[in-house]
Amino acid sequence: MSRYLSPKQSALVPYTPGEQPRERTYIKLNTNESPFPPSDKAIKAAAEAAKKLNLYSDPTCKALTETIAALYGVNPASVICTNGSDEVLDFAFQAFCDDNTPAVFPDITYGFYPVFAARNHVPFETIPLKDDFTVDIKDYCGIGKTIFIANPNAPTGVALKVSEIEQIVASNPHNVVVVDEAYVDFGAESCVKLTGKYDNLLVTQTFSKSRSMAGARLGFGIGNPKLIADLHTIRYSTNPYNVNSMTMAAGVGVLADEAYTRRNCQTVMDNRAYTATELQKRGFEMTDSYANFIFVKHPALDGGKLYEKLKEMGILVRHFTAPRISDYNRITIGAKAEMDALISAIDQILMEET
Amino acid sequence: MSRYLSPKQSALVPYTPGEQPRERTYIKLNTNESPFPPSDKAIKAAAEAAKKLNLYSDPTCKALTETIAALYGVNPASVICTNGSDEVLDFAFQAFCDDNTPAVFPDITYGFYPVFAARNHVPFETIPLKDDFTVDIKDYCGIGKTIFIANPNAPTGVALKVSEIEQIVASNPHNVVVVDEAYVDFGAESCVKLTGKYDNLLVTQTFSKSRSMAGARLGFGIGNPKLIADLHTIRYSTNPYNVNSMTMAAGVGVLADEAYTRRNCQTVMDNRAYTATELQKRGFEMTDSYANFIFVKHPALDGGKLYEKLKEMGILVRHFTAPRISDYNRITIGAKAEMDALISAIDQILMEET
Repeated sequence: MSRYLSPKQSALVPYTPGEQPRERTYIKLNTNESPFPPSDKAIKAAAEAAKKLNLYSDPTCKALTETIAALYGVNPASVICTNGSDEVLDFAFQAFCDDNTPAVFPDITYGFYPVFAARNHVPFETIPLKDDFTVDIKDYCGIGKTIFIANPNAPTGVALKVSEIEQIVASNPHNVVVVDEAYVDFGAESCVKLTGKYDNLLVTQTFSKSRSMAGARLGFGIGNPKLIADLHTIRYSTNPYNVNSMTMAAGVGVLADEAYTRRNCQTVMDNRAYTATELQKRGFEMTDSYANFIFVKHPALDGGKLYEKLKEMGILVRHFTAPRISDYNRITIGAKAEMDALISAIDQILMEET
Repeated sequence: MSRYLSPKQSALVPYTPGEQPRERTYIKLNTNESPFPPSDKAIKAAAEAAKKLNLYSDPTCKALTETIAALYGVNPASVICTNGSDEVLDFAFQAFCDDNTPAVFPDITYGFYPVFAARNHVPFETIPLKDDFTVDIKDYCGIGKTIFIANPNAPTGVALKVSEIEQIVASNPHNVVVVDEAYVDFGAESCVKLTGKYDNLLVTQTFSKSRSMAGARLGFGIGNPKLIADLHTIRYSTNPYNVNSMTMAAGVGVLADEAYTRRNCQTVMDNRAYTATELQKRGFEMTDSYANFIFVKHPALDGGKLYEKLKEMGILVRHFTAPRISDYNRITIGAKAEMDALISAIDQILMEET
């Protein structure tokens, strides 16, 4: 820390992203990336856009916004595109939370929420998940605070039904409910369909997972046009050219290839079911995940130890040290061969350690 | 505005970027873009990176950071890469300004500074430029506030010497001085060489102008490693994957092609001298610009009218309505043919209007 850092920032504890080691090739099952390359249509569109980088990207993000709007059946004024969905989440903390309207989210959820709150000097409260890591929706009904719900939740993968989220949204008409659907494309139900009915609902999604574009940094929010206009005000006050032109083009490209995306999502879901079954045979316990990862523990294996052993064997998974979840590892669902390599490695570890 | 927007944001007046019209092809001399395509090395590197977009970009931005550090003769720990230089500027307002340490900048400068201050709830003061739009460095010496100096300044193009900025930096040892060098590559002197000597100096630059990469969104800051570490703390608390992998690759690519960049900058400087001379012959007055634009007024032509007339004729320039500069237009220096088209259009307007 320099002697110039403002005291208001000096207590800031940044988010820790998953390891991105460059020194060795790992089987990467730690950051929920897609095992599939981006759509050819995305690659070609990005390469074409690269030739015109001397011109600024479109600050209105018109073509991409209209394409997203058409796919989800909403008005373009209901869509905002951002530099990853982290950016639209950060904007939501800035726009819809303050000293009188704290943020609320589960105690176990995306680890960035408390960081967004802290960096924006917004008070926040956490509500414990039930022992089985499910949300008790009663905890969120009529609470008069700005609610952030990851659905499916991370790192558990547990999903609420749209009808359950609707109860939360309907019972908090004076507050915004943000539903972070980063992982929705792997079997959960999207709340986008509710955005026309409730003016206090903001749904966020990302191109990072189901659309194989984590490296492109593209997220978006869908909500009532007035909510979205607020987020645009923040965006134009921060970085009007927040999305680069290659990413915009790639985004339009991949959306022209929905069959590819849907096929990849189905493969991930199939591999998830396969991996879950194999690990259960070996004594693992896990949540009912609707995401492109599973969240597992073994009664005879320490969570941190399993992570370390797998890393030694060239397989990266994500271990969190937070209370209640330190026994677990979050394992991204990759290609079939990657999951078979994981299962073999686990067999070896179980043989040595139990 | 929705009824959910926090009152703390409700007075926010966003930055207005230059027009980026899509409905008609203009000669675009309004947003200081390069008339030259990006380096082939940048285009190829970006296209290659697009094939691996399923993986997250490197949050440490290692390869690009090291390449920038090598070019500028500094340690990689002295460099931070951001989503355009707007992002590093925004981070600097967050890190180094607060109620006790207001931001200070000239009354006429990059229009985003007051927006960054407002959105970050940081008090700011402006110091009027002299009547000839130059900075009186005495106004900034020993003032005990966080100083933002665009050098060359925008939209005037007027530059301070390094020795002058050094006086400001040396006389404010307890405060950060941010030198925004977005336009430095067109004939001004960079202060990067001072960053090893002063721990309170942050220099920011962009790939948007001299390196023909406005659409890629890439900026960087250079300063003492402790200052840079503070900015990384903000970055990791905001968007650790702030730069996408295509842009990172393109950045490394263009830096391997410095001869191309330097040749383009020289052409812009030549075209600037040519355009300035031609407009002076026609009665225009202008500042002594060291940027890739000129800032001009004509005693017999209203600034707003000149802008409108040029737009009707298919040429976009930038007109600001702020006091003291509403007589002026900022004209980006493009290719020779574009400048000739501008001069012809101006001849016609002068004939009709004077």
